[in-house]
Amino acid sequence: MADGKEGDLKLLGMHVSPFAHRVSMALGVKGVRYEYIEEDLFHKSELLLSSNPVHKKVPVLIHDGRPICESLAIVEYVDEVWSGDGRPAILPADPYERAIARFWASYIDDKFFPAWLGIMRATTEEARGEKVKETQDAVQNLEKAFSEIAGGKGFFGGDTVGYLDLALGCFLPWFGAMRMMFGLEVIEAATAPLLAGWAERFGETAVAKEVLPEPEKAVAYAKKLQAYRASLNK
Amino acid sequence: MADGKEGDLKLLGMHVSPFAHRVSMALGVKGVRYEYIEEDLFHKSELLLSSNPVHKKVPVLIHDGRPICESLAIVEYVDEVWSGDGRPAILPADPYERAIARFWASYIDDKFFPAWLGIMRATTEEARGEKVKETQDAVQNLEKAFSEIAGGKGFFGGDTVGYLDLALGCFLPWFGAMRMMFGLEVIEAATAPLLAGWAERFGETAVAKEVLPEPEKAVAYAKKLQAYRASLNK
Repeated sequence: MADGKEGDLKLLGMHVSPFAHRVSMALGVKGVRYEYIEEDLFHKSELLLSSNPVHKKVPVLIHDGRPICESLAIVEYVDEVWSGDGRPAILPADPYERAIARFWASYIDDKFFPAWLGIMRATTEEARGEKVKETQDAVQNLEKAFSEIAGGKGFFGGDTVGYLDLALGCFLPWFGAMRMMFGLEVIEAATAPLLAGWAERFGETAVAKEVLPEPEKAVAYAKKLQAYRASLNK
Repeated sequence: MADGKEGDLKLLGMHVSPFAHRVSMALGVKGVRYEYIEEDLFHKSELLLSSNPVHKKVPVLIHDGRPICESLAIVEYVDEVWSGDGRPAILPADPYERAIARFWASYIDDKFFPAWLGIMRATTEEARGEKVKETQDAVQNLEKAFSEIAGGKGFFGGDTVGYLDLALGCFLPWFGAMRMMFGLEVIEAATAPLLAGWAERFGETAVAKEVLPEPEKAVAYAKKLQAYRASLNK
């Protein structure tokens, strides 16, 4: 699918990996075409193992044979390589706004993501309760961040989708899965109205619709993982 | 200490915080003057709490009244704001090299740092052994990264200090402390000769000499923390 302009561009992903969806959406925002390669994480390909020998994880973007790993680093790379020519920018242009965006992207990956993932992985009610509380606290911080960053506009990026929209929006299918599996609303309209509005708007963008799977896919994968873990504990 | 060019620039740090030293060194590389404010993390200032309400941690750089948090985001900010005018660049100019630098900076913070910190915090010999092994594995990955990135030159940044030099070099005082406290060499010349040579060279740079404290300071702080933790467990 690559053409002369884009060079040879391959994305190693997995159909319910939010971090791979981040990259797919970034490429979508830029209108860049690429070859998508689905990885089976139970049987990782030689290409994945050799492209990301340190973490052995998706996503990996391979551009003209050179691999780039870590979703946020890849999104910055995509933004830097495919800039100008009327292509939308993903990060803000202003250094202070960029620093704020990077701060919250780290927060999403280091605090918010482990919190809600912990809800799914908890093996006791007590542990689950703690992770629910951590998730709610993180959502409150993100609600406040949205208010400050978007400044009354529809997205973290303002009128259009930007870095933090991709960083957070990639989790929407999994929030749907949490609703279906636990009856739990990660972003509650009652307590985080701005973020709930944002989530609805983001889900309706062309780039989200094209990339993000139905929550049912995430549920099915979560059940597969649970069965696998249970088999290890036997 | 601020002047017209730099604006009003304050750094909230702590005298043995490697992450604060990262920022001090970045400002040093740029030749930017700033007011340093030492924080007592046992009695955090109102300025720290209001500038970094999410994490309540140092470093915080406050530029013309606007706070920036998270050391790597601050270093990128410093690099972007004080660019040109013959000032040295901290990140590489090439997008691929930037992505590689960001990948390894994340690795240093997410894998390498928790590993060696775990050695200090371990409460059993078994736990300590595990963390020593994790640290050694991470050092091997970093040795390989140095070989690939520096390409025979003295620093990750090539002939001069760059992003990864600051990201990793900020820990040198703590490696000295580990040597003094546990007789443990984090970067062993026998198994990581390139990195050991780099550490020696980095420690001799003007910016490291100006910013990094003697390991004795880190040892003293580690003992203070241990005593504090012991008092909580009573």
